[in-house]
Amino acid sequence: MDILVTYDVETLEPSGQKRLRKVATICQNFGQRVQKSVFECNVNQAQLEEMEHQLLRVIDLEKDSLRIYTLYGNRSKAVRVYGKDHYIDYNDPIIL
Amino acid sequence: MDILVTYDVETLEPSGQKRLRKVATICQNFGQRVQKSVFECNVNQAQLEEMEHQLLRVIDLEKDSLRIYTLYGNRSKAVRVYGKDHYIDYNDPIIL
Repeated sequence: MDILVTYDVETLEPSGQKRLRKVATICQNFGQRVQKSVFECNVNQAQLEEMEHQLLRVIDLEKDSLRIYTLYGNRSKAVRVYGKDHYIDYNDPIIL
Repeated sequence: MDILVTYDVETLEPSGQKRLRKVATICQNFGQRVQKSVFECNVNQAQLEEMEHQLLRVIDLEKDSLRIYTLYGNRSKAVRVYGKDHYIDYNDPIIL
């Protein structure tokens, strides 16, 4: 399933900077960064739960915001992209 | 339809700061800010196109990134929220 992870981590204190790096690293392990704090991931249910588990061990529920959206249907049908786009579709045929 | 608008606007120059404010104002006219650069909007097709039209007149396609996701099915089914949450569901009954 295609999911979208968006987050705001409060970085007023150094501990926030640390949380921000950890959150990005976790998301990177499960998908692709498409904007500073937006990741697109293609995961199964177990991977989704594992990612959530890891993220919830890092974020501060009082200070930070984490939203995980399930993109029902096909990701490429759901998103309209304008401007800079770093997304790589690994399902596309690789032309050697 | 429920949509999600996410953006990264490059703010190295004052013109970027101006674009950022304009983008946020436009999104605010069509929906709710749920994170710094993430808005949830409930719009019809005409409103979606009008919002896109306004946003594309503001962003710099070379420097900025704008992604608009259609949340098929029901928004509340699609999103999992952790931590700070500013979303107000106007469909909820108001208790006086």
